[in-house]
Amino acid sequence: MQDTMPTLDCPPGGSKGSVESGRELLSGVNLPAAVVHEAPLAHNLAWMQGFAESRGARLAPHGKTTMAPALFHRQREAGAWAITLATAPQCRSAFAHGLSRLLLANQLVGEANMAIVAGLIEAGADITCVVDGEENVRQLGRYFAARGLRLKVLIELGIPGGRCGCRDHDQVMALGERIAMEPALVLAGLEGYEGVIHVAEPEVEVRAYAWRLVEAAQALDRDGLIEAASPIITASGSAWYDLVAEVFQAARLGPRFVPVLRPGCYVVHDHGLYHEAQGGVLARRPELERGLAPALEVFAQVQSLPEPGLAIVAMGRRDVGGDRLPIPLRRYREGGDPARPWGVAGWEVVKLMDQHAFVRLPRAGEGAEDELRVGDVRVGDVRVGDIVAFGVSHPCLTFDKWRTVLRVDERLVVREAMATCF
Amino acid sequence: MQDTMPTLDCPPGGSKGSVESGRELLSGVNLPAAVVHEAPLAHNLAWMQGFAESRGARLAPHGKTTMAPALFHRQREAGAWAITLATAPQCRSAFAHGLSRLLLANQLVGEANMAIVAGLIEAGADITCVVDGEENVRQLGRYFAARGLRLKVLIELGIPGGRCGCRDHDQVMALGERIAMEPALVLAGLEGYEGVIHVAEPEVEVRAYAWRLVEAAQALDRDGLIEAASPIITASGSAWYDLVAEVFQAARLGPRFVPVLRPGCYVVHDHGLYHEAQGGVLARRPELERGLAPALEVFAQVQSLPEPGLAIVAMGRRDVGGDRLPIPLRRYREGGDPARPWGVAGWEVVKLMDQHAFVRLPRAGEGAEDELRVGDVRVGDVRVGDIVAFGVSHPCLTFDKWRTVLRVDERLVVREAMATCF
Repeated sequence: MQDTMPTLDCPPGGSKGSVESGRELLSGVNLPAAVVHEAPLAHNLAWMQGFAESRGARLAPHGKTTMAPALFHRQREAGAWAITLATAPQCRSAFAHGLSRLLLANQLVGEANMAIVAGLIEAGADITCVVDGEENVRQLGRYFAARGLRLKVLIELGIPGGRCGCRDHDQVMALGERIAMEPALVLAGLEGYEGVIHVAEPEVEVRAYAWRLVEAAQALDRDGLIEAASPIITASGSAWYDLVAEVFQAARLGPRFVPVLRPGCYVVHDHGLYHEAQGGVLARRPELERGLAPALEVFAQVQSLPEPGLAIVAMGRRDVGGDRLPIPLRRYREGGDPARPWGVAGWEVVKLMDQHAFVRLPRAGEGAEDELRVGDVRVGDVRVGDIVAFGVSHPCLTFDKWRTVLRVDERLVVREAMATCF
Repeated sequence: MQDTMPTLDCPPGGSKGSVESGRELLSGVNLPAAVVHEAPLAHNLAWMQGFAESRGARLAPHGKTTMAPALFHRQREAGAWAITLATAPQCRSAFAHGLSRLLLANQLVGEANMAIVAGLIEAGADITCVVDGEENVRQLGRYFAARGLRLKVLIELGIPGGRCGCRDHDQVMALGERIAMEPALVLAGLEGYEGVIHVAEPEVEVRAYAWRLVEAAQALDRDGLIEAASPIITASGSAWYDLVAEVFQAARLGPRFVPVLRPGCYVVHDHGLYHEAQGGVLARRPELERGLAPALEVFAQVQSLPEPGLAIVAMGRRDVGGDRLPIPLRRYREGGDPARPWGVAGWEVVKLMDQHAFVRLPRAGEGAEDELRVGDVRVGDVRVGDIVAFGVSHPCLTFDKWRTVLRVDERLVVREAMATCF
C-alpha cells in the first residue's frame, strides 16, 4: 500500500489532487474523481467534426464547457477551426496553452478585461468578440484606439425576451453603422445563440432565428458594413446545432461567409439534458447513424450504510453539477476487476449535499436481488468502500468542480491527468 | 491603461486570475471577482471565537466552507483550536499550509484516502476522523495496523432518516466495543451534526439531539471505551451552534470532555440562508448584542442592456452559488468613487445561466427613479460597464467557484489575493 501513497504536498491543482498516468482508478486514486473515458471522447471528437464538415461549416467548440486545454488540443487535432470562450480570462488561459484562434462569444466589458484581450492581440492571438449595443461599441472603440490596436467584432442578434443581443434587424443595421464610425473596430460578421429560445415549438423558432441571422449578415454585407475579408456567421449550442447548420447550409453563404458552429458539451456529452437533446437531433437526422456518447462520469465511494435502503456516497455538490441529480451507472468493489462491474438497478440519488449524496437502494422484496445477481455478488450486497460510477448532467457544471479530470482507458487506467483552468 | 494590464500568463490559480495587493477593485481588477470585506471578516472571526469561549467550548471552524488557507490562519490567530475538514484531500491541503490539528468530520473511506491521512499522521498531523459502522472500523483498523500507525476516531451519532451516523444509542455502544477490538484505532469521543434535522420544531429536536450526544459520550466513557486522554464531543454547523453550545455547557462535560463547535459559514456569513439562521440565533440570545455580518460579495459588470427593464450581468453559475439567486446590493461606475455607491432598489436577479445573470430593473413609473436619486445619478441611469456588488447564499458554493478570492479594505483596495484549494 505504501507504494500508492499520494504525495503530501498540496497539489497546485487544489486539494482534490492530481494523479500520475498509469494509476488504476479502482485502487490507486483517491476518490471522488471526475473521469473522462477515452473511447467515447474520441468518438465524440470525430463525430461532431464530421458533422460540421458534412454541413460545410467550421467548428469552434465552446471551450467554457471543459476549460481543459488538453481537450482543446484534442479538438484542434480533430479539425476544429477555433476555440470559443465566454470571458476574456478564459481566452487568456486558452492562448497561454497554445490556442491562438479564439472566438469570445460574449460582450467584452470592463477595461481590465479589454486589457487582457488587447494583450492577447499584441501577443499574436486572432481573437474576435461580440457587441450588441452602442455604449459598448463606444467603449471598445476608445479603448482599442488608445492602445493602437484593432479589434474584430461580431454583432449579436438575440431574441426578444432572450439574453444579450440586438432585438431586431434594424438594431443590427444601426449598430453596423455605429461600428463603422470606430476606426479601432473591424466588423467581422454576425453572431447568435439559439439556446435561449424557449417556446412550444423550438424547432420552428430555431430555424426562423437562424434565417434571421442569415438575413442580417447578408444585409450588413450588402451595405458594405462588414470590413473583414472572411466574415463569419456563427450560432449554436449543443442542442440545436443541426438546425443551425441546416439553415446556414441552405442559405449558401459560402464562399463569402464562414459558417461556424459552437457546440461545447458534445465533447463529453452527458447523461441528462444533452442526452435528451441529442435524441432530438437523431430523430430529425435519420442519416446520422450513431449519436454522441457520454464520456464524463464521477467515481465515488459508499461512505456509510446507516439504514436499510440508504447509502451515503462521498460525492456532493462540490463534485458534480446539480441540474439533474447524478445517475448511478455501475458499481465496483475497491481494487476489483474493472471489466466486471455490478449493476445498480433500482439505485437512485435522491439528494445532494455539499459533500454527500443520498442514494436510495432497492430493498429486499423489491426484486432487485433476484434479478440482478452479477458474478458472485448480489446487487443488494453493497459495502462501505464500494465504488459507484455516476453519470452527470450537465457537463459544464461538473467540469468546473475539478482542477484535474482523469482521462482513463477501457481498463480504467489513468492515461492523462487533464488540468482545467477555470 | 497600460499599467493595469494583467499578465498574459495563465495564472496557476486558473483563468479568472489573481491580482496583486494594492489594485483597486473598481478599476484595476478584471471582473467578475469574489470579494471578502476585511471589516466584517474581522468582526466575524472575533465574534464567533468570543461566542465559543463564552460557552466554554473550543472552536474548530469548518474549513470546507472557504478552503482558503489564509482564512484558516486568520481563524487560528483568532483562537481557533483546530480546523475541521470534510475529506482527506482537504486535510492534506490544510496541513500543507501549516495547519496541524485537523478534525475530519466525516468517514474516511478508500485506501487511497486512508493513505493520505496516514501520511499526514507520519508527518506530524494531529488528525481525528469519524466512524459510524463496523465495516469501516474493520477497514481502518486493518489499514492503519498495516501502516504501523494509530488513528483517532470519533463515533458519529446521527438521526433516523438523516445522513451518516449510528441511528441510536445501542449502535453507538456496540461500535465502541468494536473499536476497542482494533488496536490501531483510538476512540477519542463523539461527533454529531444537527444540520440534517428538518422538523417542524427544530429547536426542540436540536436540543434533544445534543443531549443524546452528551448521554452517548458519557456512556462510552463510563464503560471505559474512550481511550483518548482528552476526548472531544463535537457538533454544530452554522445555524444551530448556539443550541449545541447551550447543551454542552449545561451538561458540565468539563474537564473530562473538550466540547468543540464546528461552524464554517460564519467566517464570511451570507445574505440568505445563514442570514436567516443568524436571525434565529439572535432572537434566542438577546444577550448577543450584534450578530455576524456578511463579508462575501461578488462584483460583476453590466454586460448588456438589451431591452427596457433588463440588464445582463457578466456573472453566472460559474461564479456564484445557486441556492438562492444573488442579491444586488450596490452599484458603482467603473473607476468611480468606492465611497459613493448608488442604490439598486428594485433590482432583482431573476435567472442565472452558466456565465450570465438576468437582472430585472425597475421601469419608469415604478417609482424607483424618483425615490432613489443618489449623488448625481438616477438609479435608472444604468450603463454597460457599471459594476454591481451582489450578496450571495450560501458561501460554500460560492467560494468553490474561485481559485482566488480578493480580500479588500473599506476603500475597495485589494489587500490580499487569497488562494483557495478546492
